[in-house]
Amino acid sequence: MLPIVLHNYFRSSTSYRVRIALAMKGLSFTYVARHIRRGGNRMPDYLAMNPQGLVPTMVWPDGTVLGQSLAIIEFIDEMRPNPPLLPADPFGRARVRMLAQMIACDVHPVNNFRILDALRERFAADDAAVADWFGTWVKTTFEPLETILSSSAESGTFCHGDTPGLADICLVAQVVNNRRYDIDMSPYPVICGIVEECLKLSAFIDAHPTNQPDAE
Amino acid sequence: MLPIVLHNYFRSSTSYRVRIALAMKGLSFTYVARHIRRGGNRMPDYLAMNPQGLVPTMVWPDGTVLGQSLAIIEFIDEMRPNPPLLPADPFGRARVRMLAQMIACDVHPVNNFRILDALRERFAADDAAVADWFGTWVKTTFEPLETILSSSAESGTFCHGDTPGLADICLVAQVVNNRRYDIDMSPYPVICGIVEECLKLSAFIDAHPTNQPDAE
Repeated sequence: MLPIVLHNYFRSSTSYRVRIALAMKGLSFTYVARHIRRGGNRMPDYLAMNPQGLVPTMVWPDGTVLGQSLAIIEFIDEMRPNPPLLPADPFGRARVRMLAQMIACDVHPVNNFRILDALRERFAADDAAVADWFGTWVKTTFEPLETILSSSAESGTFCHGDTPGLADICLVAQVVNNRRYDIDMSPYPVICGIVEECLKLSAFIDAHPTNQPDAE
Repeated sequence: MLPIVLHNYFRSSTSYRVRIALAMKGLSFTYVARHIRRGGNRMPDYLAMNPQGLVPTMVWPDGTVLGQSLAIIEFIDEMRPNPPLLPADPFGRARVRMLAQMIACDVHPVNNFRILDALRERFAADDAAVADWFGTWVKTTFEPLETILSSSAESGTFCHGDTPGLADICLVAQVVNNRRYDIDMSPYPVICGIVEECLKLSAFIDAHPTNQPDAE
C-alpha cells in the first residue's frame, strides 16, 4: 500500500492541525514540504492537486486527494475511527465542530499570511499595524471561547470532556501561532490550561512546527 | 414540543445557509431577527446564548443552543437525516466539506461586515478599496472552485452529483452576497449553472434574504 502523503509547511497552522490528527491516529505519512514563502504551493504539480494553492493537501493511499484541513481531519476520523476525534453524540459533535470553527472560520482566515501581506501591500500597514490586526481577531474570538469553555459543563481536561479531539487540535495550532505575535494569553486561563494538557501528548509534540523537517 | 428558533439576519450569508438547510429538511422555525447593523447581536440576551455575538444562533426544541453555521447544519443533518446534506461515502463527504469550507473559511470570513468595517476604520479604506478587497477574495477562491467543479467527475447538476447539499448551500449564499458587490460572475459558468439550478428549488427561494421578515 502506498503511504499517506501530506504536502504541508511546518509553520502553517492548518498543516499542524492535520499532522496532529494523523499522529493521534498513529498514522505515519510521507512529509512533503511546500514552502509557502518561496512559492512551493504555487508550483504546477501542486496546483494540479490543490487548485487553491493552499496547504495542506493530503493524498490518501488510494490516491484520494483532499484539501481543507477540517475536511481532511473528518475524513481521517471516518477512515480510522480510533481514537475518535469527535464525540459520539450529535450535540457533542456539534459543540466540538462549533469550537473548531470559531478558530478555523473566525481567527485563522483573517490572520493568515495572504491577508497580512494584502494589508501591507494595499494599505501600507506596518509591522505594528499588522500585529494589532492579528491581535484584534485573536481577542475577538478568544474572549468568547474562554467564556464558553469556562462556563460549559461539557468542558473538561480538554475542550470537550477528558479526551482530546478536533477542537483541541484547532485551538493548539492557533495558540502556537499566537506565540509568534506575542499575544498576551493571560486573559485566557482555561484555554491555556487545555493547551498545556495537549502539549504534554506525543501527538501534539511530534506534530509541532519546530519538530518538522522543514523547520527553520 | 417547542419550536426550533433561529436568531439570524436576513442579509447574513451564514444565516441564509442555515435557513436553506432547515427548509430542505422541511423544518419550520421561529424567526428572530437580529439586526447586526443596529446591535441586535450585541444585546445581553443574545450574548448569553452566543458569546461571539455572531449570527446565526439556533435553539433546538430540547434547548440545545448552537452557533457556527456549518456546525449547526451538520447537527440538523444528523438529527433529521432526510434528505441528506452530505453524501453517503467518506470521500464524498470529504469533498463536499472541502468545497463548503473553501467558501466558509476562505471567502466569507475575510469579507464579512466586521472585516470590511475594520478596513475602513483602521486603514481609511474607501468604498472602492473595500469593493476591490471583497472582489479579490471572491476571485481567489472562485477561480479554483470553478476549476474543481468543472474538472471533477463527481460534479453534477449540483456541486456533488445530482442532489443539492452542504456545498451548494454555502455556494449559493456566497453568490447571492457577491451580487451586492457587483462581482463579475462570467468567468464561472459552472458555478453559475449550479446556482441557477439551486435557485429553482423552493428551499433556496424561501430562505433567500429578500424573502425574510426583516428584509429591507
